[in-house]
Amino acid sequence: MTAALTARPLAPLPEVRPGDDLAALVRAANDDAPFAPGDVLVVSHKVVSKAEGALIDLRAVTPSPRAVALAAELEKEPALVEVILGQTAEIVRARRGVLICRTVHGFVCANAGVDRSNVAEGWCVTLPADADASARALRAALPGRPAVVIADSFGRAWRQGQAEVAIGCAGLETLDDQRGGTDRHGRELRATVIATADHVAGAADLVRGKTSGQPAVVVGGLGARVTAEDGPGAAVLRRAAEQDLFGA
Amino acid sequence: MTAALTARPLAPLPEVRPGDDLAALVRAANDDAPFAPGDVLVVSHKVVSKAEGALIDLRAVTPSPRAVALAAELEKEPALVEVILGQTAEIVRARRGVLICRTVHGFVCANAGVDRSNVAEGWCVTLPADADASARALRAALPGRPAVVIADSFGRAWRQGQAEVAIGCAGLETLDDQRGGTDRHGRELRATVIATADHVAGAADLVRGKTSGQPAVVVGGLGARVTAEDGPGAAVLRRAAEQDLFGA
Repeated sequence: MTAALTARPLAPLPEVRPGDDLAALVRAANDDAPFAPGDVLVVSHKVVSKAEGALIDLRAVTPSPRAVALAAELEKEPALVEVILGQTAEIVRARRGVLICRTVHGFVCANAGVDRSNVAEGWCVTLPADADASARALRAALPGRPAVVIADSFGRAWRQGQAEVAIGCAGLETLDDQRGGTDRHGRELRATVIATADHVAGAADLVRGKTSGQPAVVVGGLGARVTAEDGPGAAVLRRAAEQDLFGA
Repeated sequence: MTAALTARPLAPLPEVRPGDDLAALVRAANDDAPFAPGDVLVVSHKVVSKAEGALIDLRAVTPSPRAVALAAELEKEPALVEVILGQTAEIVRARRGVLICRTVHGFVCANAGVDRSNVAEGWCVTLPADADASARALRAALPGRPAVVIADSFGRAWRQGQAEVAIGCAGLETLDDQRGGTDRHGRELRATVIATADHVAGAADLVRGKTSGQPAVVVGGLGARVTAEDGPGAAVLRRAAEQDLFGA
């Protein structure tokens, strides 16, 4: 069924610092109101990373010879490449200006998710160590226990532009597995598994600007897609290397 | 800025047949009400393809020797593979059960977008010949001239689950190019181009079921992202083969 969907940004959060209580900041931004059934709180991963202290001072990083060589090849900063390599399980693609990595968490994205935007000069931010755990903790600390999605913007192999995806998730049906269902003609709907959590992340992005200081958005109307259980999280959205559509 | 977003499905459409006036069906499903400023009508490509007659009777297809050989390799139906090859500019990946193609339109997706679900037994449907043109025509025939997105579900290289994407578009800012802007720290937002039209397609999918007969959804609140001009369409979301993140 098909309740109407809504998405609204919460008030801007203050600059988040290591050790900050992100749940408290979100509650304040929502006027301490309880979240409604079917609500999903979508937060940019960057505020989660900052609160968790996943920030690195690039001036304190000594790049390895491998990072120096790769940085020269890609025309990137050696210290930044050193940080990226520390977050990388496997380099998927490297060429001038482009470094696509399978991260230690199992995501495939540019620069292993290491980012310098919206961070103080000279610093960078990495992905949360376990964004599903971060989502579960945030959910538990919010009134009404909304589902929580932690989002980042990833490039796509075959399409221009970045799309928001869920890198952490709790309490939301991450994938909608419609296999075994039938269409209106009674024909089996084969191979249809919908990445619901990524759609929610994308919907949230439509109401906030990257520069607006509005990293938190409430998507409402998700109904039974929001579950009492925290569920499998965004982990199920990772495609294992051996299932890679380009691998051997 | 950040108006609140809404998404609501229109009433189910009747089964669409070749030659049907899709705009008339959509107008009726919306009670002949004018669309509001900032509205985007998102329609599943399948109803567009059907109205345009992009339907093929597989029993009337004679598979080529190449299609027969590939079908045996992939364990697919030879006539279906013949239709897929007719829609394909380049095979990106072929292995048992999986056939990823760059279509003649320039999209990269499974089976070149050829699909047997939600189609009568023995038939298949192909992508619209020019979905941007279809979107422009539909837009021009709707009261209030909402933006129009024609959507399909595509698999992703590195993530599980299919995500809705825009294969045709008119009157919507397809890509939000934030390059050259600055973040809250005055740091340049590099390489940030957001695939807005794909996010809109995904948001729409959250309020309709695949089997519900609700292929049309109105996403509201997009404000200035809806433009008087039809704009470049979904064509700008296609990544050229030479920019493929896996190519040479």
